[in-house]
Formats: sequence, C-alpha cells, structure tokens
Amino acid sequence: MEAKTCNESRVVRTSRIFPNDVNNHHTLFGGKLMSDVDMIASITATRHSRKECVTASTDSVDFLSPITPLDSVCFESFVTWTGTTSLEVFVKVIAENLLTGDRKIAATAFLTFVALDDNGKPTAVPAIIPETPEEKKLFETGKERAEGRKMHRKNSKELASFFTTRKPWE
Amino acid sequence: MEAKTCNESRVVRTSRIFPNDVNNHHTLFGGKLMSDVDMIASITATRHSRKECVTASTDSVDFLSPITPLDSVCFESFVTWTGTTSLEVFVKVIAENLLTGDRKIAATAFLTFVALDDNGKPTAVPAIIPETPEEKKLFETGKERAEGRKMHRKNSKELASFFTTRKPWE
Amino acid sequence: MEAKTCNESRVVRTSRIFPNDVNNHHTLFGGKLMSDVDMIASITATRHSRKECVTASTDSVDFLSPITPLDSVCFESFVTWTGTTSLEVFVKVIAENLLTGDRKIAATAFLTFVALDDNGKPTAVPAIIPETPEEKKLFETGKERAEGRKMHRKNSKELASFFTTRKPWE
Amino acid sequence: MEAKTCNESRVVRTSRIFPNDVNNHHTLFGGKLMSDVDMIASITATRHSRKECVTASTDSVDFLSPITPLDSVCFESFVTWTGTTSLEVFVKVIAENLLTGDRKIAATAFLTFVALDDNGKPTAVPAIIPETPEEKKLFETGKERAEGRKMHRKNSKELASFFTTRKPWE
Amino acid sequence: MEAKTCNESRVVRTSRIFPNDVNNHHTLFGGKLMSDVDMIASITATRHSRKECVTASTDSVDFLSPITPLDSVCFESFVTWTGTTSLEVFVKVIAENLLTGDRKIAATAFLTFVALDDNGKPTAVPAIIPETPEEKKLFETGKERAEGRKMHRKNSKELASFFTTRKPWE
Amino acid sequence: MEAKTCNESRVVRTSRIFPNDVNNHHTLFGGKLMSDVDMIASITATRHSRKECVTASTDSVDFLSPITPLDSVCFESFVTWTGTTSLEVFVKVIAENLLTGDRKIAATAFLTFVALDDNGKPTAVPAIIPETPEEKKLFETGKERAEGRKMHRKNSKELASFFTTRKPWE
Repeated sequence: MEAKTCNESRVVRTSRIFPNDVNNHHTLFGGKLMSDVDMIASITATRHSRKECVTASTDSVDFLSPITPLDSVCFESFVTWTGTTSLEVFVKVIAENLLTGDRKIAATAFLTFVALDDNGKPTAVPAIIPETPEEKKLFETGKERAEGRKMHRKNSKELASFFTTRKPWE
Repeated sequence: MEAKTCNESRVVRTSRIFPNDVNNHHTLFGGKLMSDVDMIASITATRHSRKECVTASTDSVDFLSPITPLDSVCFESFVTWTGTTSLEVFVKVIAENLLTGDRKIAATAFLTFVALDDNGKPTAVPAIIPETPEEKKLFETGKERAEGRKMHRKNSKELASFFTTRKPWE
Repeated sequence: MEAKTCNESRVVRTSRIFPNDVNNHHTLFGGKLMSDVDMIASITATRHSRKECVTASTDSVDFLSPITPLDSVCFESFVTWTGTTSLEVFVKVIAENLLTGDRKIAATAFLTFVALDDNGKPTAVPAIIPETPEEKKLFETGKERAEGRKMHRKNSKELASFFTTRKPWE
Repeated sequence: MEAKTCNESRVVRTSRIFPNDVNNHHTLFGGKLMSDVDMIASITATRHSRKECVTASTDSVDFLSPITPLDSVCFESFVTWTGTTSLEVFVKVIAENLLTGDRKIAATAFLTFVALDDNGKPTAVPAIIPETPEEKKLFETGKERAEGRKMHRKNSKELASFFTTRKPWE
Repeated sequence: MEAKTCNESRVVRTSRIFPNDVNNHHTLFGGKLMSDVDMIASITATRHSRKECVTASTDSVDFLSPITPLDSVCFESFVTWTGTTSLEVFVKVIAENLLTGDRKIAATAFLTFVALDDNGKPTAVPAIIPETPEEKKLFETGKERAEGRKMHRKNSKELASFFTTRKPWE
Repeated sequence: MEAKTCNESRVVRTSRIFPNDVNNHHTLFGGKLMSDVDMIASITATRHSRKECVTASTDSVDFLSPITPLDSVCFESFVTWTGTTSLEVFVKVIAENLLTGDRKIAATAFLTFVALDDNGKPTAVPAIIPETPEEKKLFETGKERAEGRKMHRKNSKELASFFTTRKPWE
C-alpha cells in the first residue's frame, strides 16, 4: 500500500453564515461548526483510504475566534497521522471577513476515523507523507496525540463504570 | 451566589433518527450528534448561570456504540464542574432500541462554556453541588480534566504558530 | 399483556428557538411546534406499545402562551388512555425563560396513534396505569375525549361528501 | 369593511415527498404535514385580513389516507368562517399519485387565527362570502365548530388546573 | 399519445419567506428560489408525461424584482413546449405583499426535462395544447428557445474541452 | 481600482450527498445543486469586489453527468468577466467517486452579479486578469456571453408583456 501526501486527502469547504446558525451574540453556534467539521473530515478520511470511514472520536475542538454573519467560513482538512486501520484528520477553520478579506483561524480540531472493508471490519490504511512545515509539525506531534487519546480512553472507561442508563425520573 | 445542584441544570432531549442523519453504514453521523450535543449543553450552561453562555471548547467526544434508525436517541446534560466564569458540562447520549427498549450509552462528551454579562464580558457562575454517585465522580474528576485542558491549550498554542491562513492554491 | 405506567412512556425533548422558527411578531410558529409535538408523541406511542405506531389524528392543539427566542421550550409526553389497538398521547409544552427560569405552559395537545404489527395491521396495546394527580385526571377524562373524537369523525365524514379533489383552476 | 370570497384567500402549495419526510412505513410524518398546514393557513389568514395573524388553535387534523414518496401532495386552504377578530381556515390535503394522476383527500384540518394590529392587539376582520357547494357547507357548519371550540376550551381550562410545570425529575 | 393542455400540468406552490432565506439586503437568495423552481418544474414535467423526469438544463433564471420577508411568494409552472422525449417547463415567480395584496413578477425561468421509462431510457411525451394568450405566446416562441439551447450546447461543448478536473492546489 | 486574478476570487466547496438530496433515480436534484451554485458564486462575487453582491441572472445550468450518493461533489467558482458594476462568475461542479477517486465534470454554470454600495446602489468592480488556459478561454468568450445575455433580456422583456399576475383560479 503506497503512502500518500497530505495534499491528496485535502478537502476544502467554504460557506456563508446564515441567521439560523448564530446565537444571540451573533456568533456561529459551536454545534453548527462541529457538524461541518465532521462532514469534511469524513471526506478527507475516505479520500486517503478510499474506504468508507466512521468517526471514532473527536478530540477537543478549540474555538479561537468568533465567526460572525459578515464572514465567510472556510474549512480545510487533511490526514496528519495514521495507525494501522485508523487515521487522524486535522481540520482548520478560517473566517474571512467578506468585505475586507482579513483571514483568521477561528477553530481547529482533530478527529480520528476507522476505515472499514465491505464487511464493516477495520481495514489497513496508507501511510502519510507530510510536505509543508505545517503538515510536518502536525505529523511529528501525531504520535503524542495518539498516546494522549489512549490515556484519555482509559480514563473514560474508568468513568464509564459510574454512568447509568436510567431515565432521570425513574 | 448560591451553589446549585446538577439536577437544576439538567436538560433532556429525545429525538428520532431520520434518513438524512445516517451514513452509508446506516449509523448516525458523528457531526449530527455533535450539533445536538452542543445545543443541549448550551441550555444546561444557561440554566446553571442564568446568563448567556458561549462554547469555549469541546473536549473529546467519544463514540462508544453506533446509533441506528431503529433507535431513539436521548441526550442528557448537566453541569459537572465550575471555574470562576467558566463551567464544564457533561453530555451523555443514550440510544434506546424503540422496539425492545434496550438502552445503552452511545457517546459521552465534555464541553466548557464561558458565561457572559450584558456587555459580553465573562461573569461569575454559581458553584455546583453533586448528589448522585455519577455526579459525584464527575465532580471529583473535574479539576483533573480542567488541568488537562490547560495543558492541551498550551500545546495548541505552540502548534498554532505553525498554522497558515493561506489558501491551498496560493 | 401487562399494563404500564405513564412514566414508562414519558418522553422529554428540550430545544432552543432559532430565528427561522419565529414569525414577524417574534413568537414561535404554530407549525414548528406541531412538528415537534408529533415527533415526541410518536416516540411515546412506540415506547408504550413497543410497536411501530402511525398518527391517526391530532386533536386540537391549544396555544396558551407565546414562545419567544429568549425561551427554551420543553416538550413532555406520555400515554393517557388506551383503546384496543389505539392509544392517546398527551403533550405538554413548557416555555422556560432562559435568563429568569420562569416556566409556563405554552401549549397542550392530544394525539391518537394506532400500533401496527409486522404486516402493517393494527395490533393490541397494553393498558395504562396513571400515578400522579395530573395523570389520573387525564386518564379519567380519556373516555370522554374518545367519544368526542368518535362524534367528530362522524361529522367529518358527513362534511367529506362535500369535498372535491378538483384543482381550483379546473 | 367589505366581505371577501373564499377564492380571495385561497392558497395552494404543492410539494414532493422527500426521504426525510417519511416514517419506517414509508408514509409521510404527521408532523411534517402539520407544519405545512400551519404555514399555508397563516398565509390564507393574512390574505383575508391583510393583517399579521397568529395561530390561536389547531382543531383536530384528520389523517384519512397515507401519503407515500410516489405522491405529490397539494395543500389548499381558504377562510371558511369569521368571528369579530378571529377567523377559521380550512386546509385540504390532496395526494396525487405522480405516475397515474389519481387524486385523493389525505387529510383535512381546521385552524383558527387572530388578526393583530400594529400594536399586536386583536383587530376586526372582513366577513366571508362562500360561493361553491364545498365553501357553503363549510360556512354553514362554521358556527357549530366555533361553539365546539368554546366548549373544548372550557374543558381545557378545567384540565389545566391539574397541570404542573415541574420537571419530571424534580 | 393524446396532447394535453398547459392547465393539466400546471403546478402552484406558495411559501412564506423565512429569515434564513434572505441575504444581508433582506431579499430572497437566488439559490433558494432556484431550488423551489426546480422542484415545482419537475412536478409539472411528471404531471404532463406521467413518467419520472430528470432535469436536462436550466435556462437563464431572470431576477426581475427582489422578494422581501413581507412577501409571500407564489411559484406557478406549466409545460410550454415539447420535443420527442424532452419538454420545456416555464416557471413564473410572483411576489405578493402580504399586507397590501400587490402582486408583481419577481422572476421567470425555463427548464428542460427528459422523461425516462422504467429502464431509465428517454421515452416519448405528449404534445402540448396552449389555451391562454400567455400560453400561446410561450408555445410559439418555444422552437426558437430550443434552437438557442442547441447553439448554447455546441458552444458549451467547445468550452468544455478547456475545462480541467484538477484540484486547484495540484 | 486594481485588477485581480481569477485565483483571488476562487472559492471551493466540497459536500457529501445526503438521502434527501437525491430523486427516485438516486441522482442529485437539480435544485439542490443550483442552490449551492448560487451560494458559492455569491461568495466569489463578494471576494472579487469586496462589496455585497446580488444575483442578477443565472445563465443556463448544464447538467453533464448525474451525481450519485457514492460521490462527493466539489463546487469551484471564480470571476471570468466584468462589466462596470456587474461581474460574471463561472461555477464548475466536479463529482468525485469517493471509493475510486474518479473525477468528472457534472455541471457548469454562469451567473451574473451586481455589486452594491452601502446605499444599495450599483458600484464599480475591479477588472479581471485570467492566468490559466481555462481562465483565458472563459475570459475571451465573456463578451460574447454578455451580448447573448443582452439579447436574451430583450426577448424576455417582449415575452413579459404577455405575462399575467392573475391567480390561475381567478
């Protein structure tokens, strides 16, 4: 299986902000942004693996700067790190003031996906070849994030034993 | 400012799964789930603080079990930990098979919000009083998660210096 | 077939109000509310019968108090009365002012559903056990509403003979 | 204030059925239909009164025949009866099999609206002049439905004293 | 195959304008209008042919007058010209000021559809019988528009040889 | 006012196809595509002019190849020709088979926009500098398309005198 560049899995998606997408402070809802983040990241995962992929986890989404109805918002995603059957996708959200052209990073996110074969079983994915400084830095730090995720999952499991599926009124 | 129980900020939201909400493996899109997670968590944050709140970050959303069109999905959220002007909200997503009544935890998430006063400035929020074992465990581990977030933010800042707002074709 | 409590079929759904959901008087559209009323009621019907259920009729939806963008809106539904293969669901819509916590009943509705077996034929449903004063009052008055519905249906049929499927321009 | 014909307030709205609009039995969701019923009826109310109108109540919506994805669905509405500041709108929902052209009445509904002046206060509306047999029958029976509504409202008020705004888990 | 009148394929669809449908100048988005134009035109095409139809092209949509949130908007469509297996549909968009009743033509469009048989192959469609002056004028000028389309398609093909499917960053 | 390259106004938008977006032949609705075409083109128009822009007309949208749920769809737009206060935007729609990576042109469209100043009056826009063979060919042929549009508008005006705003049943 041949390794692929970040460029090959890159996906770009630009949108306008609609009235329904903003809260009472006239800034984009986190949830609206997260829904687009997941959609574009899943296309990137499929472009890299050429397999159907399902979301395994969404790492912290960091909201760095609010997005307003005067902005267009541009989502850019590419694969930054791969395991055997899983891959990490980075999503960068850039707000562009439509009237001035000023661009700033509004949010960033890392998601992990698992590639599935025709029977719905995890299947191997190509390795990644970073090229730009941005891609290289993200690739180098990928292993560390993967370990952080493993630790996080261990903590989650421990917590999960305290969770109940009981309805609040029962 | 009087402390409040988790019960006071609890919010419940039950939905059906629609064809548009599922991927080609007939399981709920991660992004659709994240959009509802953010919406319900923001109501919880406002119920606790009685102030308008904006999403500061979304910690890892963990997808534990797929949700299918035969399930109803129930989101439950409450405040689990508070800082001075910020608060942590826990969201538990329970899938219920509509025909058998089996319930299982499909996903969990932690989000942080900042409460804003009328001028859009961060403002103090009440402390939290956990009551059930679930709430107590989440409260006890809240400080640790807050510290993890601080560390994560430091790493993010370091990474951010490598990010570019350049369009991919420029 | 064992009777079930109202609590077992109870469903709760909380939402924010979005700009697209309000009319020029900044109050929630009746139709938006009715769409959520039907969705939650159909989950309640399925929870009680553990069969797929289809809407048979929607009795009068009464709008008691307008809902504004500052409110969260909470739909609560449970089964209140059962026939052999049909069941009555009550939906209570409570508006909560997000900044003060004031709660008032914004609307109420009764819907009837028919439970269907795997061949799409009507099938028997469990009886209902009311527990709280609210549930008991609704249960006691259920038979009267069923009779009102029967009379209404008779009137409707009589009217229907006057209806035409002709297009207005033909 | 001059009386108006039913024809003057008539509104027609035709739609296709989309996958998201049907339940697991492949028939249109009641709630989707009710949302369109309310929208078209509110345009009819405004056309008749030339004032902004708000929904006062939705009488029973009767589902007479299921609507499938092979149908187009046509909503037709007009004013059938008027009070001083309120008016009754009738909505007829006709399903047309797109491939055969067969048309049948799928549902009917009556809604009441109140016309509002610029200060949001109820304001007088024109009387109605029925012309066709369908319109005349609906007009003649309007007073009876208005009285039924009054009685229903009295019963509702009595019931309402048993209702609680308490959250189910409190 | 018997010819049909324009009246037989006529479709009418009336809507309110919602906040999400308007741009920052508070006028309806072209794209929102085009989406409804295509939907109603495809119902007209199916009504005329009683076959499933797919959009072949959308001729110029001309925006004659802006539509605002105070308007209701009424789409009206009918078949104006037919080829062997294709048909031309005209869509007229009328904005009606809800408070004054003033009506003006906001946009017009011509679309072409191809009727498909059960195997997805193009299949013959009935001829058209225009009746009103509007319909007759549109019918008479149909051949000219069909020829304009043929020429346009030739130009498009020539242009197409210059188009690349390369991503902008590759 | 300095001229700008096509690259500066380029906008890219990638989407998945959802069940609600496809017809009974499992291909993307023309109207859904046209709605996205208009949205992305309006961002391109604003990027070039740094003014709010409104759609003046949409030339023929040509559907060259059907788009299916297995495809991702990528919209790419840039300014191709400018008048004094108006500009022409070209939109290329590329379907990419997600599992094979095959890319083909699914549709193309030309739209014209008018740039507005703060008073809503038409205002001058920068000239365009084409760079690639694709851009140069589109630029060279722009004047011809502008003339075709002028002729089309003359024909439309002549037709318009035959149009009526009468409701079909009046």
